[in-house]
Amino acid sequence: MIKTLDIEQLKKIFAAEQKELLKEYFEFLRFQTIATDLAYKSEVDACANWVANYLKKLGFSVERWKGERGDILFGELRTSSDKPTVMLYNHYDVQPVDPLDLWTTPPFEPALREGRIYARGASDNKGQCFYTLAALKVLLREMELPINLKYLIEGEEESGSHSLFNAVEKHKAKLKADYLLIIDSGVESLKKPAITLGARGIVAFDLTVTGSAFDLHSGSHGGMAYNPNRALVELLASTHDKNGKVTIPHFYDGITPLSSEEKKDIAFEFDEGEYVKLIEQKPTAMEKGFAPLEANWIRPTLEINGISGGYAGKGFKTVIPAKAFAKVSCRLVPGQDPQKVAQSVKDYFQTHLPGGLTIDVSIHQGAGQAFYTSPHTEIARVMAKAYSDVFKKECRNIMIGGSIPITTTLAKASGAETLLMGVSIPEDKIHSPNESFGLDQLQLGFLVMAHALQLF
Amino acid sequence: MIKTLDIEQLKKIFAAEQKELLKEYFEFLRFQTIATDLAYKSEVDACANWVANYLKKLGFSVERWKGERGDILFGELRTSSDKPTVMLYNHYDVQPVDPLDLWTTPPFEPALREGRIYARGASDNKGQCFYTLAALKVLLREMELPINLKYLIEGEEESGSHSLFNAVEKHKAKLKADYLLIIDSGVESLKKPAITLGARGIVAFDLTVTGSAFDLHSGSHGGMAYNPNRALVELLASTHDKNGKVTIPHFYDGITPLSSEEKKDIAFEFDEGEYVKLIEQKPTAMEKGFAPLEANWIRPTLEINGISGGYAGKGFKTVIPAKAFAKVSCRLVPGQDPQKVAQSVKDYFQTHLPGGLTIDVSIHQGAGQAFYTSPHTEIARVMAKAYSDVFKKECRNIMIGGSIPITTTLAKASGAETLLMGVSIPEDKIHSPNESFGLDQLQLGFLVMAHALQLF
Repeated sequence: MIKTLDIEQLKKIFAAEQKELLKEYFEFLRFQTIATDLAYKSEVDACANWVANYLKKLGFSVERWKGERGDILFGELRTSSDKPTVMLYNHYDVQPVDPLDLWTTPPFEPALREGRIYARGASDNKGQCFYTLAALKVLLREMELPINLKYLIEGEEESGSHSLFNAVEKHKAKLKADYLLIIDSGVESLKKPAITLGARGIVAFDLTVTGSAFDLHSGSHGGMAYNPNRALVELLASTHDKNGKVTIPHFYDGITPLSSEEKKDIAFEFDEGEYVKLIEQKPTAMEKGFAPLEANWIRPTLEINGISGGYAGKGFKTVIPAKAFAKVSCRLVPGQDPQKVAQSVKDYFQTHLPGGLTIDVSIHQGAGQAFYTSPHTEIARVMAKAYSDVFKKECRNIMIGGSIPITTTLAKASGAETLLMGVSIPEDKIHSPNESFGLDQLQLGFLVMAHALQLF
Repeated sequence: MIKTLDIEQLKKIFAAEQKELLKEYFEFLRFQTIATDLAYKSEVDACANWVANYLKKLGFSVERWKGERGDILFGELRTSSDKPTVMLYNHYDVQPVDPLDLWTTPPFEPALREGRIYARGASDNKGQCFYTLAALKVLLREMELPINLKYLIEGEEESGSHSLFNAVEKHKAKLKADYLLIIDSGVESLKKPAITLGARGIVAFDLTVTGSAFDLHSGSHGGMAYNPNRALVELLASTHDKNGKVTIPHFYDGITPLSSEEKKDIAFEFDEGEYVKLIEQKPTAMEKGFAPLEANWIRPTLEINGISGGYAGKGFKTVIPAKAFAKVSCRLVPGQDPQKVAQSVKDYFQTHLPGGLTIDVSIHQGAGQAFYTSPHTEIARVMAKAYSDVFKKECRNIMIGGSIPITTTLAKASGAETLLMGVSIPEDKIHSPNESFGLDQLQLGFLVMAHALQLF
């Protein structure tokens, strides 16, 4: 048995086996694993079977942990207690597909067009899961790996990972590892290889403001009855000062800012022109003193994700509504405790509503801490080298403004150095109609993974 | 032919003819005159025929002015050029009936239960129109009236009176009168007879705030892309200061406040306990320095009638919406020019939106001036005497916070002293399911009208 496979050898193997790999990848994509909708439970279960069998064929011993909407698969492949243990994480559930009429081809009939595979989950996260499986298939067949492997593949990521949060508590001892790769991230473009050092945490709220017992006529009551819409906009407007800072007491408590040395390691460079071309809006919401990607990656924010009250349809209705509603979420950075922030925000909303109206504030399940790994850890060094070698370009250190709440929980339970990685790109349109994944991305992901697993 | 009919005589006639009158009133109520919905056009037309025939039988010459959704009936009954001319105004169209399942009996099958008639329009405005027709029927049969009569009955009041606004322009010469009664108002309770000296004007706006070209992920863009929901709540919150005053420049321009002498004539007394019992909310929105009914009757206000943006359904969606919407209306008082206020408010919204986002502000059709008549006018004296005589209680002077936009236009075109009147009470639940009108109200309205028309 050979000792290593270099990138050129891996490329040749991928090319030779591409047809067979695509066949398997398409099988994987055909399962309609919309786990959030229990109507798809049999598809979800069938997919979990398929994944479990794939792992078993590779030599993994597989446990199946019951999930509410999708079971969790936990594979182990031990070679020696002397070797470090690498744990991998993916998910096989996907986002819903509506609006269905915007899909060029059906979301669960994978279609190859101009070098890209179109299907729900093609990228997020079946594509990224599949190149990992493919890399393992080749490596485990061709060589003796210098690591022990654990592989966690869950089925509820798109609906909050509730079952996995519980399973981590229950199976903590089994999850010990030295390195943990959360393979659910990406790069800005295929010309800019990058590893993801951090993700923000999240906590979300539902607000209900109540005025009168029923909707009032705004002529008969305007000037007397305080309008819940007005109280709500005044409350929400008061959450930011003119420098874009959140005004809620204790909101920023506990944050350890990155030092200027640490900042230098991270690719905060921002191309405003590219950004405006993409979203047709200038970046103007930055907290004063922070560049766009600093504001998005290393500063907490508070967003109004939804607001509604009164009549907003066609024509006009002169109403003072009985109730007004809002959905608010906060993105968190390292040092912020989600529970403490949740309480501070709730306290603020409950004590700052004008007009003597009543407010109900509820905190959503699924709050999660922020995550950050130094680029000077072993896992960051190994993965950066893998990306650089494969892409033949220096690997950048980036972060994401979004959240993968399970990350910190898994990192803590495993005790492992942890990193987010992946080869997803904006063109993949994850969560949207016509989600796709490039054949080039499938190959690059395979190469990065197969190369990296030899480097630990 | 007798010269006058006193209240006791009128009561006897009403009692004797009540059965026949109710039969006619029920006929009137059965027409499904939801003029806003063109599906009911044949019902609207049939009802206009019925009203026209009723007027003709009373001796009126009737013109029918084409309306977009409901024709306008204009009746004239000239007795002598020496006598003053009284013009009456009612409408025969009604509000839509949904939610239909909340009606105890069908809205267009009038039902008499415990002294009240239940039907859509029973009060607003067929009830108030019918007691006027009934009073005319009796008076014109029994005596020679000391006045010339004009009677305007329109079919689009509930959808903005657009056709009447145009007709007033076209038929201005015909509308000259000395006194004009807009019979579409009411009293606080049947124990508190009152005439309505004023109504507020109105102007309304649609606001659309646009950020990016499509909805954004609030993790990936939060802190960079200014959230349209945030810009909108900040803009709307800035319209009031902490004293409840509207901050928009020129908003209060032109207002001539009532003198303390004038204020004494108006029943501003307010029973907070009763109010809280009714709506289950304390009155807390008053502009500083004004009592509740002052704030509602003689001060302009700005209300957010509707707001919407992003995801406000079940669960959570971490979105920064591409757009956010609001509907805003201003109630106006005498001295304020609706067009000027509209422009000031539009200017403010267009120049004060934060975040560098774009906003579209459109002004709704149907803006109208406020209306006010001094209690020392002849029409107010006559009508106050009529109410006092019938109710055997001093008549109060009240106002309404709502708007009847056609009032000022009709007052100007006719050159008449103008007053709002009626015997509607809150229990009538106009615009709501199970609208009703009491037999006692029908009689009282008949008595007030029949008595008043002899007093001019």
